[in-house]
Amino acid sequence: VERTAGRLEELGIESPTLVVDRPRAVRNIERMVRRAAKLGVAFRPHFKTHQSRAVGRWFRDCGVTAITVSSVRMARYFAGDGWSDITIAMPVNVRELRAVAELAGDVKLGVLVDSREAVAAIAAVAGARLRVWIKIDTGYGRAGIAWDDEERITSVARAVLSSPRSDLAGILSHNGLTYRERGRDGVLAVHSEAAKRLQAAREIVSCLAEGDCAVSIGDTPAASLVEELPGVDELRPGNFVFCDLTQASIGSCSMEDIAIAVACPVLGVYPERERALLYGGAVHLSLDSLKEGSGGATYGCISLEWPEAASVYAPIVSLSQEHGVAAIPPGGAPAIGHGQLVSVLPVHSCLTCDLHPAYLTLDGERLDTIRGWTDSDGGAG
Amino acid sequence: VERTAGRLEELGIESPTLVVDRPRAVRNIERMVRRAAKLGVAFRPHFKTHQSRAVGRWFRDCGVTAITVSSVRMARYFAGDGWSDITIAMPVNVRELRAVAELAGDVKLGVLVDSREAVAAIAAVAGARLRVWIKIDTGYGRAGIAWDDEERITSVARAVLSSPRSDLAGILSHNGLTYRERGRDGVLAVHSEAAKRLQAAREIVSCLAEGDCAVSIGDTPAASLVEELPGVDELRPGNFVFCDLTQASIGSCSMEDIAIAVACPVLGVYPERERALLYGGAVHLSLDSLKEGSGGATYGCISLEWPEAASVYAPIVSLSQEHGVAAIPPGGAPAIGHGQLVSVLPVHSCLTCDLHPAYLTLDGERLDTIRGWTDSDGGAG
Repeated sequence: VERTAGRLEELGIESPTLVVDRPRAVRNIERMVRRAAKLGVAFRPHFKTHQSRAVGRWFRDCGVTAITVSSVRMARYFAGDGWSDITIAMPVNVRELRAVAELAGDVKLGVLVDSREAVAAIAAVAGARLRVWIKIDTGYGRAGIAWDDEERITSVARAVLSSPRSDLAGILSHNGLTYRERGRDGVLAVHSEAAKRLQAAREIVSCLAEGDCAVSIGDTPAASLVEELPGVDELRPGNFVFCDLTQASIGSCSMEDIAIAVACPVLGVYPERERALLYGGAVHLSLDSLKEGSGGATYGCISLEWPEAASVYAPIVSLSQEHGVAAIPPGGAPAIGHGQLVSVLPVHSCLTCDLHPAYLTLDGERLDTIRGWTDSDGGAG
Repeated sequence: VERTAGRLEELGIESPTLVVDRPRAVRNIERMVRRAAKLGVAFRPHFKTHQSRAVGRWFRDCGVTAITVSSVRMARYFAGDGWSDITIAMPVNVRELRAVAELAGDVKLGVLVDSREAVAAIAAVAGARLRVWIKIDTGYGRAGIAWDDEERITSVARAVLSSPRSDLAGILSHNGLTYRERGRDGVLAVHSEAAKRLQAAREIVSCLAEGDCAVSIGDTPAASLVEELPGVDELRPGNFVFCDLTQASIGSCSMEDIAIAVACPVLGVYPERERALLYGGAVHLSLDSLKEGSGGATYGCISLEWPEAASVYAPIVSLSQEHGVAAIPPGGAPAIGHGQLVSVLPVHSCLTCDLHPAYLTLDGERLDTIRGWTDSDGGAG
């Protein structure tokens, strides 16, 4: 069996390193830009997936002008690179409102609320006006006002409409339930139910606002698979830029779309127990896992041909802090050897990327992430 | 219900922040130092748990002089703070051997091998001599030569003994199986079986070395609970410094020993669905989870009194990138409110700490970790 190390061996990698296939990521961005245009919705990609100014510029080169982030710090980081239209897509953290208000003086800033307390807290802080989205829960149960809680939707919408520091932007939802589906039909069915629920909430708010209320949705599976988006004004997917094993298992990307991998040295090969040990653990991949059928959890997959191809050689079956254990195929000589470099395709690219201070492109260029960025305005955290 | 924010509110925390109770951590260190002395073994604590020079100095103040780390970068980081006796406790990564050899010129450096390939690779790199431990697998199945594979143990030991650049340090094992036990009896039974297996391996190596071969073991549960350690020369636990919900559930610490928590703002309270939303997700806590009985997974626990007490108010039942969802007690007014700060006790302190650039002490002092450290000698990774 030939031991394929692919282009990684040329990069001088010594320890676990996040590698990005830039042309593939750009292709993924271009595809989603075209989808949003065809669907007739505004495109506001979520930058929490990559958290890198350099990667952000690939989006800008594709004509993207508005972005989503998941923290105030991330908003500041991207604002510092020229992004001027940013939504912080989680219920606003009232402890950071001074920083939020300050940033809103520099960029068009959107925040999310799902309570009157949050609206009141915004009103109490001096600073620029905020675009306020009302977060609606269409059934995922994480954040937001339940789509059928007319009383609370009305109450929060009235509070926003009467607040001196808030402009009602619309209603916003993240339907994480699509991640539990496998296949287009399931994703579309789950999406369709959530879309109906959002329209019900939209009607309540439009009525109060005496005008059309915008609707923003987020998840990558629906964004990748729907063929029409009636009643939706804005799309905020994030994961599609790199994709991962989860998106491939849902059916919202192909294995060939996966644009990142963690290059890991092989520390040991144990054919007698059908295992290989990688230098690459929870601190390099994250503990996110896939469970399919009755088998155990998978924490990533070794591909020996990535980025040329995405065939899977062996699943990672357990992770500790710095180690990963792969289940290698039974019988015969292993196709990987001691000291070799292998590519591990991630289960969840957002969490994997968050663990690394930089990306290495296949051309050997290092792209920094927010992790190494010093936010001199930062608080105690 | 009184809403207790404890001492955290005085610290000016705005976003998820890793907080350490220094006196409690020092008490945990002192306890393990006394245990090792009483057990008559050398103490080489694993610094991968805290990854901070400042915390390392607390160990030094307790008389600790030898340490364990889990990467070459971590070895360099601590060597730069005066630690001169370091074991890198994973099978040596041959791609980093130049850096290893260079560091071995400055400090007493131990590495692990479990293959002849690794021993040969060490011999091929110019530099100082290395102390080489033979890694033995006593049944955990992650790394190391199987304890009963006499042929491979003999072959690797002979290679080390005849290598011009290796000094045989002994045999070393990590019995991760103790983490699956609940209660002292289970831990001791699992430890006892592993100890027997290590003695069998020790006899093989002692015979070849024509002298006593040292034995080093690692896991915190056994280190916390054993009353004697016959045939063991060195103890390498790490987790005990901070403890966590896993150690408490095993029975190797009490809840009152947990010395860190992540302070998280409450983004929303939803009594109607018995949930609260925290700003605190997988990127602040890690996805490590506990599953007890037939219930779902727990990703951390909100304690309203920490550090004064460690009572649990609500478990975190799901995590996404930046959000955590807590299951609050049914009925009555919630004991937490919008915008409040709560302490989340971690499931696995090592992985939680790895996610943060610094600790905040209860006195408001910021203690940096390796995360912000710039290793100017670092490679592509």
